[in-house]
Amino acid sequence: MSVGFIGLGNMGAFMAKNLVKNGRQLVVYDVNKSVVESFKKLGVAVAKTPSEVGAESSTIFTMLPNSSHVEEVYSSKDGLFQTLKTDSLCVDCSTINPLVAKELALKVREKKSEFLDAPVSGGVTGAENATLTFMVGGTENAYQRALPFFQQMGKNSVHCGDVGTGQSVKICNNMLLGIHMIGVAETMNLGEKLGLDPKVLSAIINTSSGRCWSTDSYNPVPGVMENVPAARGYAGGFGNKLITKDLGLAQNAATEVGVPTPLGSLAHQIYRVLANSPEFGDKDFGSVYKFLKNQK
Amino acid sequence: MSVGFIGLGNMGAFMAKNLVKNGRQLVVYDVNKSVVESFKKLGVAVAKTPSEVGAESSTIFTMLPNSSHVEEVYSSKDGLFQTLKTDSLCVDCSTINPLVAKELALKVREKKSEFLDAPVSGGVTGAENATLTFMVGGTENAYQRALPFFQQMGKNSVHCGDVGTGQSVKICNNMLLGIHMIGVAETMNLGEKLGLDPKVLSAIINTSSGRCWSTDSYNPVPGVMENVPAARGYAGGFGNKLITKDLGLAQNAATEVGVPTPLGSLAHQIYRVLANSPEFGDKDFGSVYKFLKNQK
Amino acid sequence: MSVGFIGLGNMGAFMAKNLVKNGRQLVVYDVNKSVVESFKKLGVAVAKTPSEVGAESSTIFTMLPNSSHVEEVYSSKDGLFQTLKTDSLCVDCSTINPLVAKELALKVREKKSEFLDAPVSGGVTGAENATLTFMVGGTENAYQRALPFFQQMGKNSVHCGDVGTGQSVKICNNMLLGIHMIGVAETMNLGEKLGLDPKVLSAIINTSSGRCWSTDSYNPVPGVMENVPAARGYAGGFGNKLITKDLGLAQNAATEVGVPTPLGSLAHQIYRVLANSPEFGDKDFGSVYKFLKNQK
Amino acid sequence: MSVGFIGLGNMGAFMAKNLVKNGRQLVVYDVNKSVVESFKKLGVAVAKTPSEVGAESSTIFTMLPNSSHVEEVYSSKDGLFQTLKTDSLCVDCSTINPLVAKELALKVREKKSEFLDAPVSGGVTGAENATLTFMVGGTENAYQRALPFFQQMGKNSVHCGDVGTGQSVKICNNMLLGIHMIGVAETMNLGEKLGLDPKVLSAIINTSSGRCWSTDSYNPVPGVMENVPAARGYAGGFGNKLITKDLGLAQNAATEVGVPTPLGSLAHQIYRVLANSPEFGDKDFGSVYKFLKNQK
Repeated sequence: MSVGFIGLGNMGAFMAKNLVKNGRQLVVYDVNKSVVESFKKLGVAVAKTPSEVGAESSTIFTMLPNSSHVEEVYSSKDGLFQTLKTDSLCVDCSTINPLVAKELALKVREKKSEFLDAPVSGGVTGAENATLTFMVGGTENAYQRALPFFQQMGKNSVHCGDVGTGQSVKICNNMLLGIHMIGVAETMNLGEKLGLDPKVLSAIINTSSGRCWSTDSYNPVPGVMENVPAARGYAGGFGNKLITKDLGLAQNAATEVGVPTPLGSLAHQIYRVLANSPEFGDKDFGSVYKFLKNQK
Repeated sequence: MSVGFIGLGNMGAFMAKNLVKNGRQLVVYDVNKSVVESFKKLGVAVAKTPSEVGAESSTIFTMLPNSSHVEEVYSSKDGLFQTLKTDSLCVDCSTINPLVAKELALKVREKKSEFLDAPVSGGVTGAENATLTFMVGGTENAYQRALPFFQQMGKNSVHCGDVGTGQSVKICNNMLLGIHMIGVAETMNLGEKLGLDPKVLSAIINTSSGRCWSTDSYNPVPGVMENVPAARGYAGGFGNKLITKDLGLAQNAATEVGVPTPLGSLAHQIYRVLANSPEFGDKDFGSVYKFLKNQK
Repeated sequence: MSVGFIGLGNMGAFMAKNLVKNGRQLVVYDVNKSVVESFKKLGVAVAKTPSEVGAESSTIFTMLPNSSHVEEVYSSKDGLFQTLKTDSLCVDCSTINPLVAKELALKVREKKSEFLDAPVSGGVTGAENATLTFMVGGTENAYQRALPFFQQMGKNSVHCGDVGTGQSVKICNNMLLGIHMIGVAETMNLGEKLGLDPKVLSAIINTSSGRCWSTDSYNPVPGVMENVPAARGYAGGFGNKLITKDLGLAQNAATEVGVPTPLGSLAHQIYRVLANSPEFGDKDFGSVYKFLKNQK
Repeated sequence: MSVGFIGLGNMGAFMAKNLVKNGRQLVVYDVNKSVVESFKKLGVAVAKTPSEVGAESSTIFTMLPNSSHVEEVYSSKDGLFQTLKTDSLCVDCSTINPLVAKELALKVREKKSEFLDAPVSGGVTGAENATLTFMVGGTENAYQRALPFFQQMGKNSVHCGDVGTGQSVKICNNMLLGIHMIGVAETMNLGEKLGLDPKVLSAIINTSSGRCWSTDSYNPVPGVMENVPAARGYAGGFGNKLITKDLGLAQNAATEVGVPTPLGSLAHQIYRVLANSPEFGDKDFGSVYKFLKNQK
């Protein structure tokens, strides 16, 4: 049987093509006509609705912008739930609210099928080069069924626990990442104004208790590291709009479960400002360094 | 000639004793009579004023609670400046405002002597076991003169640049540390409420972009790591009062040089609350995890 | 017909008694046996379930701790929806999520009845003395039907617009209130440390652009005003737990509709700390002044 | 004798001209040649240095951008202190660090003269129309000597206490103002997204506990009030750069005296962002409403 793939955006198109390259027979769906045409040219079957995908495949991947898109693809009158077969495996690679993932999993289970939430890290480059990391929530059995597909689209996968844990791990990791990147931006600006060389300061921090991924692997100060977005004007990388989306999901989850996140909520507000500014809207999130440096 | 040592508190007393153990002949000063008596019993010479220390030694260490204590030891009518000899070496190991260190260095230079700021990390345990790290600002010549002493009191020393850079590096590192520790506390609380096992979440973050010293070397969640303060009720370690002091110095510096520090200033306020609470005042700063967990 | 009243807590019991005093015939329900007994002694009819209240009355007030209590009273198997008669008027005086109020109103409308959300301000004292203010959302017709009741339980009522607007106005007002109270606490502490007399500072601010209700009507500094909680050790008044609840509702609403609230979210976190502390948990929210004053 | 006036910027030029209009004989100084020329054309005496002003007058006003300008005008080698006569009255109308004002007052006293700090509110319009308010710190005697001048340049003056209290009152008032303006911006945005009419919401808040100057006298939502900056695209009014400067002074003072200001410091960071943005840099501070509304 075919493998279904719904959502052929910046990430999804590359992921689907990597499955095709590995010999998988796909049936795909997207609202965007031109991307769909490009798949037709590759000889890939194209469905007119998500329910057609459900009818023709028993392993279905979704890669969509947000919770409401995922809900619609599953629950609308042309949605997957209209046709989903017993014993199907549904894998949602979108980054969405973990509580929405849990609700969806319950409904998939009612259809006697399995659901995995499997959001990714690695960005468009990772999708293109099949070097993504999948953070996966669901049963061990479902995870084992999906593993061969993850290996064709990515480099790593981590089984985090039950349904929803893939999303939860992703928003937790990214909230912390968003916080320490701003922390690094503040720290480097302060150090430079106090007369420190940013390379020297970074090197000392990297062997001290301030060390973090944002200093030692993705330093936001131009000139400190090569091959990071800071070295090329913050082009590419992990955009301010995406980190804003992820920190927004973390804030939703935190208010739903009643957890205080003083730094997480302030970090969210700061990236929101960048995501909405003409100068920084399309830049890598390390540009918060430049944003703060510009302030007097 | 004798080596002068002024300031025999929790840290200073151990540091001075490590010099004695290594065969150094000391002349010490402190306002606390009982600690001074304990040095007399070791056969160490005791001065009645800082100016007496200046008269009897040409290498002088100070280890004092804050900027104003340091200024007083140098500039009061019984202070070091009354007697400081040409070609002396003054090493201040206190953690103080970098701008105060710079001013002091200018005055020491007027006396044709040299000044190093050399704040430490490693805490009381590091002072006792001679495993401190010194972050040092001043000339290369002065640094080389002080190095044999640093090796007897600690394990590492880093020459950060000109006078003031030792202090600047320390407050920069500790501001970032203070931020990511709270970030980790928020993240772990959120993850647990979302149903994640804190060990699993920490392990995944430690191989992902959220990784930082506060997750992989000093995890604040009880049960995740051994031999950290979280494993013993947050006893020992790096106290909330000390991190509050360091983040306060960072805030002073940031307002003086006009650098925006939204997360740094919020982190400062949060540790302030802990430092002033009966429950957390004397605990390790990782207790911010428990503090946030207690909030509904 | 009888008037139904569900929820006889600190506020609700006084409100219901004020209706009785004004000659209304009531049927009441609460899970707390002892408060129910006190109503029996007054000769008031007591129902065993919310659905019994629905069966015996066509005007029904609810005054409950939070959204989930209100949902349960309406939608459980013994709930109001089991028996609600056509043309009933349901008035919810609880402070809850405005989106929950809107959902509930839709279901009430399906039963061909009317719903008002009518949260109050004025606290327990206002409930006892019938001086509450009602902020009311719903149709003009429903508002007119409820007005005679509001006049027996309170002093003022404001018709804010459609269903949900009563709740929305309340959480908006209280978010702003929560922010400027902390602002006043910070400002007065700063002024005093700078050597200003708090009475003089308050008087000048009250005729200047800093003026707000928290300075001119509810000043949190002991000694500045009489007859406010600050004059009696922050006893009574508007408790830290209640303002925390209201700011939590505001945060929920803000994340749902995607509105940035940097100060609102930080204020929420600060009141959370107070609400959870042994010293301030049961004090008026003006005690944030004392809380900040205690910090060094 | 002549009255000295140093600092003929946007505010100072109007203030000095109002003294001229009232028949005062002035001797003025400014580094800006063209503004000095405009005073020469009015027949006003022009000094080449501040010390010349000191030599020719015994009442001297200063109106300068910040602390360091004021210090220079007094203490440089061509400064006022070179020539200041016994029994002079020095009135500094600049907005500066209160601790700098106190230091300066000590030095003026050594010259057996008197010093007042007298920062103003009312902006350029108030300076032009002689409707400023003066917040004054210093002795009663000095205040009485200055009063006739204040009455010619402004509408109100408040004697706040000893030297420094004028500055302290101003930065306290403006910190609170800066906080509640952002609070209002957040609140109105939230209310509108929840479906409330901003006029209705403002009207209710204005009779409730959320009431403040930013809602009832300077509402930042276009369409709610007339004759405020929000009604004219945030032109004129109290600019983001000025409120940023004042909140920066408040932050300096707060760190110097050790007062926690969580909302004040966050508000400062937010206005900093606006002051540095091309869109909002020259707008009234109420534009924070629009700034937040723009965020998604």
